[in-house]
Amino acid sequence: MKKLTAAVLGVAVATGAFASDQDLLKQAKIYFKPLPTKPTSPSYNPTTPEKVKLGKMLYYDPRLSLSGVISCNTCHNLSEFGVDGVETALGHKFLTGGRNSPTTLNSDFQIAQFWDGRAKNLEEQAKGPMLAPVEMANPNPEFVVSKLKTIKGYVEAFKKAFPNEKEPITFDNVAKAIASFERTLITPSRFDKFLQGDTNALTKKEKEGLKLFMEKGCASCHQGVALGGTMFQKMGIVKPYPVGILGEDLGRYKVTHKKEDKHVFKVPILRNITRTYPYFSTGKIWDIKEAVKIMAEYQLGVKLTDDETDKIVAFLESLTGEIPKEARTLPVLPPSSPNTPKPQL
Amino acid sequence: MKKLTAAVLGVAVATGAFASDQDLLKQAKIYFKPLPTKPTSPSYNPTTPEKVKLGKMLYYDPRLSLSGVISCNTCHNLSEFGVDGVETALGHKFLTGGRNSPTTLNSDFQIAQFWDGRAKNLEEQAKGPMLAPVEMANPNPEFVVSKLKTIKGYVEAFKKAFPNEKEPITFDNVAKAIASFERTLITPSRFDKFLQGDTNALTKKEKEGLKLFMEKGCASCHQGVALGGTMFQKMGIVKPYPVGILGEDLGRYKVTHKKEDKHVFKVPILRNITRTYPYFSTGKIWDIKEAVKIMAEYQLGVKLTDDETDKIVAFLESLTGEIPKEARTLPVLPPSSPNTPKPQL
Repeated sequence: MKKLTAAVLGVAVATGAFASDQDLLKQAKIYFKPLPTKPTSPSYNPTTPEKVKLGKMLYYDPRLSLSGVISCNTCHNLSEFGVDGVETALGHKFLTGGRNSPTTLNSDFQIAQFWDGRAKNLEEQAKGPMLAPVEMANPNPEFVVSKLKTIKGYVEAFKKAFPNEKEPITFDNVAKAIASFERTLITPSRFDKFLQGDTNALTKKEKEGLKLFMEKGCASCHQGVALGGTMFQKMGIVKPYPVGILGEDLGRYKVTHKKEDKHVFKVPILRNITRTYPYFSTGKIWDIKEAVKIMAEYQLGVKLTDDETDKIVAFLESLTGEIPKEARTLPVLPPSSPNTPKPQL
Repeated sequence: MKKLTAAVLGVAVATGAFASDQDLLKQAKIYFKPLPTKPTSPSYNPTTPEKVKLGKMLYYDPRLSLSGVISCNTCHNLSEFGVDGVETALGHKFLTGGRNSPTTLNSDFQIAQFWDGRAKNLEEQAKGPMLAPVEMANPNPEFVVSKLKTIKGYVEAFKKAFPNEKEPITFDNVAKAIASFERTLITPSRFDKFLQGDTNALTKKEKEGLKLFMEKGCASCHQGVALGGTMFQKMGIVKPYPVGILGEDLGRYKVTHKKEDKHVFKVPILRNITRTYPYFSTGKIWDIKEAVKIMAEYQLGVKLTDDETDKIVAFLESLTGEIPKEARTLPVLPPSSPNTPKPQL
């Protein structure tokens, strides 16, 4: 009798769970979309295998920096989910930038690039670090271009990637190739399976976390394909952040000079978020649980319990995806020639 | 008639070339050996797949450094043939070591490690950079060990790699795992095919270069599996090097304190040498042709012509091998935990 009851109950629970799973899925589909399986291919820079291949070489090439030891991968390390795991990036001479390095994974699925959205796309973004004195520290675009022109393997690779251009090695094309490679950095996870209808792809706890994530209001901003990157938002909607968490960064105001953009930032994407610590634009918070609680308190005016936080973090863990193996395979870089400019400090 | 003559001559030349190729091969086999296809497995640290896997994670993990941004791969970059392409390594805070970073490729096939041979094997070598203040800058071995113990993925990986040990995460075992991974960094090239009997694996020019390489005396020191790494030699046998080339480095004397070891260094390996610029322990010479001419002059008392140098360099190019793809595929590193020590400067 006991066994029978348990069996009946089991069916009932399963059926009940199924119905509520469908509700949850329905609700989730309003906020989120699965990652596409193929990279986008914008008309201003169509994605081609040749560009992706060249872009990968450039992404991993430390010669793109003045010192010869800093590559894109130094701060956007693809063995560390596209970040560097430090508060703020260490660049040329270990100088440090003012903000935490955002991940390059799934970075294409955003309305703009950088924390303050000052670059409209990946192409524009890619140029920034090469010229920033605290990052790769090249004196000007021409320096990068003239260096690459001395490397035979690059001369050939640019010709293949930009076959109809007379002068294929340009700073614009360097950025275009890197952007094409970055568009391949798509990391599907169990959450995508869930969104595609497989409600068993998430555990009970993760589903409870997803429900809370929507109910508490996180999804009002962290939505879309990448759970973020679709809008700008003020940091400190409910109350201002202490300097210890957010520093004194005015955010988008520095771009637009509009009063209403003070402390406004692009909503960061949450794909792989449990692996892209430390958190916030300052990188001051290392524990994802702490980060979730802070966000709830300062952005939503909600005090999350430990149990709620645990569940939300469990859901966030389901956003950890597969980094494409091809992208993680280091290219064999083409050799410098004797007239390649030497590394400088 | 003309055609017939050409055909007969063709056979004659081919036969002649074959005979002389066999002589060249015979001579080459006295000096050199092909690379083994499998990593060695020393009794003091047998090579296992689990150790290699763990070693690869450690090799690529920037958390092995105090700053959190310098990994073994920073200075021994496997997309740059195991070197960094700078004169002397840039480490913690961009401080610089006194000597050029040797390649990790084929580094197992040497009597000792470091330019001055102060480490007897890869295990001993691997410990050096982790503790050097100008490299990874960890304060002591315990710091590294206690950090790794906070990373769950490493706790599991060390358990698998050292299954019979109660306390698998030790500084010795960190070094053992890295050494096991490095033993897989074997890069067979066309020269190995030649040594295995395929005399067509090298071009005519490369074979002429190989002949000169032996005749002029280069092979007296650059011999064995890796064309070097089998002995110590004085730099400046024929005449002392100018400070501009070799600095004021006393070499092995600093290890042994023996008068006869002044300016003595381990003979560096020449596998992939055209890709592991810049040259000499100082990294002051960038052009392989210049390096070859200097070596001939100061070590052998030989003035090489441009033509001879070209041929020798052509031969050296045939030593450029394949870096195993598996070794070049970045691992997905296990995440830190909230109690993992934070990066420090």
